[in-house]
Amino acid sequence: MELFGVIAATLTTISFLPQTLKTIKDKDTSGISLGMYSIFTTGVFCWTIYGFIIGDLPIIIANVVTFIFALTILVMKLKYK
Amino acid sequence: MELFGVIAATLTTISFLPQTLKTIKDKDTSGISLGMYSIFTTGVFCWTIYGFIIGDLPIIIANVVTFIFALTILVMKLKYK
Repeated sequence: MELFGVIAATLTTISFLPQTLKTIKDKDTSGISLGMYSIFTTGVFCWTIYGFIIGDLPIIIANVVTFIFALTILVMKLKYK
Repeated sequence: MELFGVIAATLTTISFLPQTLKTIKDKDTSGISLGMYSIFTTGVFCWTIYGFIIGDLPIIIANVVTFIFALTILVMKLKYK
């Protein structure tokens, strides 16, 4: 993966950290879309499987990390509806 | 790109549509993280450039679409603070 790809993957992966921390802290999920996090979490799970299929470690790592963040936000959304 | 990759890319791309529509409709951005959408929009922009560098059309299309959604949410967050 080229440097620009590594920067891109790092940014899109770590971007979910501030949202996860904010949601855990504020428990404010009214503006968060259940549809988005249901579809997104499923999509990131598919990316992880795809990473295993093609044997690409950066894809696996980036998506496992994003999956943990997205699933946490999804669970908070379901918990604090 | 294999079928699983296409499914994964489609899901993670379209997932931002319900969030975008919800935010436009409700103007409720208190639970949305400015940090997330600042970093994420930048990251998706980098993914688009990376797509051009390696000449991968699916990466370009998926990220241009996601960029439009993410930028819309970011603008709404800045507008309805």
